[in-house]
Amino acid sequence: MESDVSDLPEGVSTSSEVSLDELQLSQRNHGMHLEGLRYDVTPAGMHYLLIHFDVPETDETDWLLSVGGLVRKPLELSMAGLRSRPSLTMPVTMECAGNGRARLSPRPISQPWITEAIGTADWTGTPLRPILEEAGIEDDAVELVFRGADHGIQGGVEQDYERSLSLENAMRDEVILAYAMNGEPLPPQHGSPLRLVVPGWYGMTSVKWLTAIEAVPEPFRGFQMEAYRARQEPDEEGEPVTRMAPRALLVPPGFPEFLTRSRIVDVGRHMLMGRAWSGWGPIERVDVSSDGGATWAEAAVGEAVSPYAWVPWTFWWDAAEPGAFELCCRATDAAGNSQPLEQPWNLHGFSNNMVQRVPVEVRSPADP
Amino acid sequence: MESDVSDLPEGVSTSSEVSLDELQLSQRNHGMHLEGLRYDVTPAGMHYLLIHFDVPETDETDWLLSVGGLVRKPLELSMAGLRSRPSLTMPVTMECAGNGRARLSPRPISQPWITEAIGTADWTGTPLRPILEEAGIEDDAVELVFRGADHGIQGGVEQDYERSLSLENAMRDEVILAYAMNGEPLPPQHGSPLRLVVPGWYGMTSVKWLTAIEAVPEPFRGFQMEAYRARQEPDEEGEPVTRMAPRALLVPPGFPEFLTRSRIVDVGRHMLMGRAWSGWGPIERVDVSSDGGATWAEAAVGEAVSPYAWVPWTFWWDAAEPGAFELCCRATDAAGNSQPLEQPWNLHGFSNNMVQRVPVEVRSPADP
Repeated sequence: MESDVSDLPEGVSTSSEVSLDELQLSQRNHGMHLEGLRYDVTPAGMHYLLIHFDVPETDETDWLLSVGGLVRKPLELSMAGLRSRPSLTMPVTMECAGNGRARLSPRPISQPWITEAIGTADWTGTPLRPILEEAGIEDDAVELVFRGADHGIQGGVEQDYERSLSLENAMRDEVILAYAMNGEPLPPQHGSPLRLVVPGWYGMTSVKWLTAIEAVPEPFRGFQMEAYRARQEPDEEGEPVTRMAPRALLVPPGFPEFLTRSRIVDVGRHMLMGRAWSGWGPIERVDVSSDGGATWAEAAVGEAVSPYAWVPWTFWWDAAEPGAFELCCRATDAAGNSQPLEQPWNLHGFSNNMVQRVPVEVRSPADP
Repeated sequence: MESDVSDLPEGVSTSSEVSLDELQLSQRNHGMHLEGLRYDVTPAGMHYLLIHFDVPETDETDWLLSVGGLVRKPLELSMAGLRSRPSLTMPVTMECAGNGRARLSPRPISQPWITEAIGTADWTGTPLRPILEEAGIEDDAVELVFRGADHGIQGGVEQDYERSLSLENAMRDEVILAYAMNGEPLPPQHGSPLRLVVPGWYGMTSVKWLTAIEAVPEPFRGFQMEAYRARQEPDEEGEPVTRMAPRALLVPPGFPEFLTRSRIVDVGRHMLMGRAWSGWGPIERVDVSSDGGATWAEAAVGEAVSPYAWVPWTFWWDAAEPGAFELCCRATDAAGNSQPLEQPWNLHGFSNNMVQRVPVEVRSPADP
């Protein structure tokens, strides 16, 4: 087996078990409890979190956002100034690009997400476009680089966390500079006092602890732009990771066993419920299976609380007989994208939207 | 090696790597970011969390707490009624009894905490004693059993989460029924709408989603009472896990490497800061080492924000030369308890208060 292992690229593991380093990341960067899918808006503190370095120590009173680079009028914006501008509040569903990574084989070594790197928050902020118009982006600018205050080393590169967007994407109406989450000032771990929120995109784009926006003449090739690309081999150019692939998740029914989180429900009809979303278009349908994906039936899909938030769905499951079942759900969006039953592999484990599988034991009421 | 492994009791592992089951628990039950030690009171959502089963679906408007068993006047208390009673607000430091478990060898298989299962919240609630006095505990009652709404199977036993306290401990002034955390209604994952808070004790005692208090004539031997005992062998009676052993933790200085979380600081004097607490008495001193515990120097200990909350401490570290260092800190309480350099082992991994070790690379300013 040694030869197989030595053929593996650096940074992946053939073990399904995770190291203390990865576990340490998992203790900091938590997921959303799947039963949290019952809420339209994820309660404070339950929303998933991914922080590359440390939560920086910040102070809203002296925070300044600089807007510079290829602009006619560089700006320095205080939090008071940002709060006095027109504001927009909207529920936005956000997912980590690495959600599902821990189920890949071989397994990319990084934050070991299973299923729970999701959340929907009610973000309040000011639209970005009027700020860019005020600064006056020069004609030779092609992208904006967003810089966060979190600082560290990744892949051997010392860096502030930085990501870019094309001008076209940055100018979209729904892109905001957010200073509140669920009606409260941003918690430190979610980017206090200011962060970018880019609805429809995986979370790495929504830079937290935002200190600077810089208009640049070339596509930005900083570390985090190179890192978030789907590739099969390390030396491959790869495809940038951008919008969220469609996904449906269900609230695991019944009650759990502590260690395995496997579910027990009684014989009978059960209303299953969950949520579905896609960054590529509205959700057109959700299908549910109770036999591990062999057969499917259509769920009832409700209304989203905003164009950028998940839709609720429900499905009556008739668990008529005791036995072992595997519940699955699958979303299809208006762009025709759906979810695979088996996960295609990529080197860093991005955009893994394989259908969720929830093993359930149905028991007769007489069982202990 | 097979014979060694087969001699191990059930439920422990000789591997330092954790399974997908344990990782799944870790995604739900998150720790506090260690840089969160900079805050007197842990920001909402950053406080550690341990939920044995699911976050139950609760509704404050029809919630009733029953007080029964060996009482002269059984009570049914609504949330409006509880909120109209005298209230107490106090910062309380809480730690999971299993904190540090993942570093044991062999390693007990359960929620795989490393260091971060801590937090200090500003709890608001109504004192328990007047409620017990109103109900009139009968003379033959010896304990109170507190029942939560979370339901599941653990160790093969289907159960609501239940823990007991002796009458003496339950009657202490600082024991409250809490309905607010950091000035906001309890979040669902922290016990909404009502939980017990028992300052000084490990967190398993502070039952969340509290539905019932029952006065009983015998010491309660329910599953969670048997589970939270320190023992060496499965068939041993063991010692109940109660109050928090002393612990000091420091904010890791400098900045981190993404995957390993190891630290980099520049040559120079650095103000280290952290917190310390004990359930057995006030913190008398905190010592700091930069050579992995070979030599120690005393830190400056500040004032606690409440008798039940951690104390802040600071220490000027003179990192005069580049090189590899290991920072440690060690608390000693007024009862004479301190922290071990090597962790004594117990079967389920409780009360692990070994000193924290933070590897730091000191670099000269000229380094890249």
